[in-house]
Amino acid sequence: MPVGKAVIGQSGGPTAVINKSLVGFIKEAINQEYDEILGARHGLEGILKEDFVDLSKLSESQLYGISKTPAAALGSVRKKPTENDIEKLVSIFEKQNIRYFFYIGGNDSAETANLVYEGAKKIGYEIKAFHVPKTIDNDLLETDHCPGYGSAARFVAHAFQGDDADNRSLRGIKINVLMGRHAGWLTAASTLGKSTEEDGPHLVYVPEKIFNLDEFLKDVKEVYDSLGRCVVAVSEGIHNKDGEYFLQTYASETGSGLAGKKDSHGNIQLSGSGALGDTLTNIVSEHIEGARVRADTFGYLQRSFLADVSEVDAEEAERVGQYAVVASKEKESGSIILRRQFSETYYCDVDVVELHKVAKHTKNMPEEYLEKNKPYVTNDFFEYAMPLTGGIEPKTQIFV
Amino acid sequence: MPVGKAVIGQSGGPTAVINKSLVGFIKEAINQEYDEILGARHGLEGILKEDFVDLSKLSESQLYGISKTPAAALGSVRKKPTENDIEKLVSIFEKQNIRYFFYIGGNDSAETANLVYEGAKKIGYEIKAFHVPKTIDNDLLETDHCPGYGSAARFVAHAFQGDDADNRSLRGIKINVLMGRHAGWLTAASTLGKSTEEDGPHLVYVPEKIFNLDEFLKDVKEVYDSLGRCVVAVSEGIHNKDGEYFLQTYASETGSGLAGKKDSHGNIQLSGSGALGDTLTNIVSEHIEGARVRADTFGYLQRSFLADVSEVDAEEAERVGQYAVVASKEKESGSIILRRQFSETYYCDVDVVELHKVAKHTKNMPEEYLEKNKPYVTNDFFEYAMPLTGGIEPKTQIFV
Repeated sequence: MPVGKAVIGQSGGPTAVINKSLVGFIKEAINQEYDEILGARHGLEGILKEDFVDLSKLSESQLYGISKTPAAALGSVRKKPTENDIEKLVSIFEKQNIRYFFYIGGNDSAETANLVYEGAKKIGYEIKAFHVPKTIDNDLLETDHCPGYGSAARFVAHAFQGDDADNRSLRGIKINVLMGRHAGWLTAASTLGKSTEEDGPHLVYVPEKIFNLDEFLKDVKEVYDSLGRCVVAVSEGIHNKDGEYFLQTYASETGSGLAGKKDSHGNIQLSGSGALGDTLTNIVSEHIEGARVRADTFGYLQRSFLADVSEVDAEEAERVGQYAVVASKEKESGSIILRRQFSETYYCDVDVVELHKVAKHTKNMPEEYLEKNKPYVTNDFFEYAMPLTGGIEPKTQIFV
Repeated sequence: MPVGKAVIGQSGGPTAVINKSLVGFIKEAINQEYDEILGARHGLEGILKEDFVDLSKLSESQLYGISKTPAAALGSVRKKPTENDIEKLVSIFEKQNIRYFFYIGGNDSAETANLVYEGAKKIGYEIKAFHVPKTIDNDLLETDHCPGYGSAARFVAHAFQGDDADNRSLRGIKINVLMGRHAGWLTAASTLGKSTEEDGPHLVYVPEKIFNLDEFLKDVKEVYDSLGRCVVAVSEGIHNKDGEYFLQTYASETGSGLAGKKDSHGNIQLSGSGALGDTLTNIVSEHIEGARVRADTFGYLQRSFLADVSEVDAEEAERVGQYAVVASKEKESGSIILRRQFSETYYCDVDVVELHKVAKHTKNMPEEYLEKNKPYVTNDFFEYAMPLTGGIEPKTQIFV
């Protein structure tokens, strides 16, 4: 295959360490014989507009700066390519002699890499295409976990430590809504800073289980009656047995004004809104008379709070970016994964798997990470997730 | 005056460093000749129930533990004492031979200390009463600033650094709602992490100025048209010229379901709810077609996030607690204040002023901290607030 140019883009919701992957990629890419190393501004959108920046000219100190920059240094985008888009992309690649395509993102980005690879093959244009994983949702198949998750989990665990102490001080019921439309990984991380049974969160509701409002109210009341307080972690994506979001069904059943907005894809807008937390607060207030009930929705802070990043996560994010270049020397296409080693101290190796194994799929929390008979996580989850956060010190807590 | 016992309580919304003040107090108090040093659980409520804990028996390591414990280690309370409460308090003090009353809190707590002092005087029972300042709202008179504010400001500044980068990656309009019912100090802190004019927040709305929806929409559109994005910081307490909260008037004018709940005092509930952010999001979405509009309400994380505390704030919080004991040797009553020294490096001395000067008052941001012709802060504010945060490093940001 002719050498040609390489292009990289970033896609989807940023994470605290997505730029580490970009820098890992660049550092390895400048040692290759690519004609040029292009960064596409705002992912696919940048490629379609041929809005590129030359990444091979960056100094060491600029690379360091990028690695410390929150969110996507190239700009990001939420875009699923149409068939036309793919055709256009391939023709631009051909025109520009781009032979290597790297895309940092979630399962949609793996799918995009796959579509580009297949689209090029169809017209006989030789190309290599690789997906570099990132998502705070931690919901990609094949990989042990996703870069971005460890830092988000760290933020969530620390946030709950403080918020739980706040709730202990003023008592009442506190509901915190976490990101996670399909998988509860980040919501589950709310438990990682707990020292004792009495610490919150006391209840954890994830999309892997069907949400039942009556049971929820019973659970909350039970904890509140027993401790005089209750801290709850709820995934934004809680839903009924038909997979309909709680917020959506509740709003249509009750005509509640907290219904929330739909986004441009017609999905109900779960992020960037406090609607779910406020709705649950109102319901709990009515059900448990006299209780002080409050909700917070952690929102975008979960993926962008740079003052509290997991070092493990940062290092791995750089390594998967770097390894994408290495993998492209041997293979035609693939998705980079982390594979946990069985050793006394935590370590993940990098490897590459076929794109279709990752594309479009969602990895839910497995059964063994969730308690069967109560809304809570197991110790297996704790052991899985803790190393990814860089370690959460137990909260010092002396309540006298 | 007979020596007798000392009692201390914590009141109102906790801060990240309120326990530093408690520990500062205890360390100094154990060197005095008090018969006992009592901690009242949940403030006034604990005194009224005679629910006390002996603080003189705590080990060094326990004290260290308390100083690192988020939120109020004694438990907190939101309670304005009635005349009856004060009478009962004084009679309990008399019965228990409590001669020293220390109360950590905001302006309501200063008022409580004052009422207790006056109530005891009325019946001829000798007592000393001191207020130890704390509030993330930073709205106490006399003191240069309030312990708790620096850490909350640090969290807010760091949160905006990350969130602004997120907004730069995905573009659109982002509205963040900050705590602050009457004063905009914490909302103004959103600007402290900015490096350039192009960084967000681009617009800052505080309760010190009358909020006008039409001007707000014009401002947002102007920034959005010019930069393709806009980050906005809004105090929860924005209001019209009659002092009515925006959320309240908008809800009653439009019949919007986002009206928000009232708390037990009949105040509209501004904290622990996403209603203001969601309402503004809906309005902006209708006004600026096609824009991606999101809101986050930072909520209780602002006062409880222990992983990112201002060292300056922590040190000062301990010092005001300690100084309350010192002041009580010379004076009958008072509120502890911080007084900024005119020197090249930032330093605040501690001092004490009369309780009535602090009680019940609110310190708004002065005119010189707010731009006249646009919703933004001045450099004077920047110079005032930055040292309190322990310093916010400019965000590394290379967007290529």
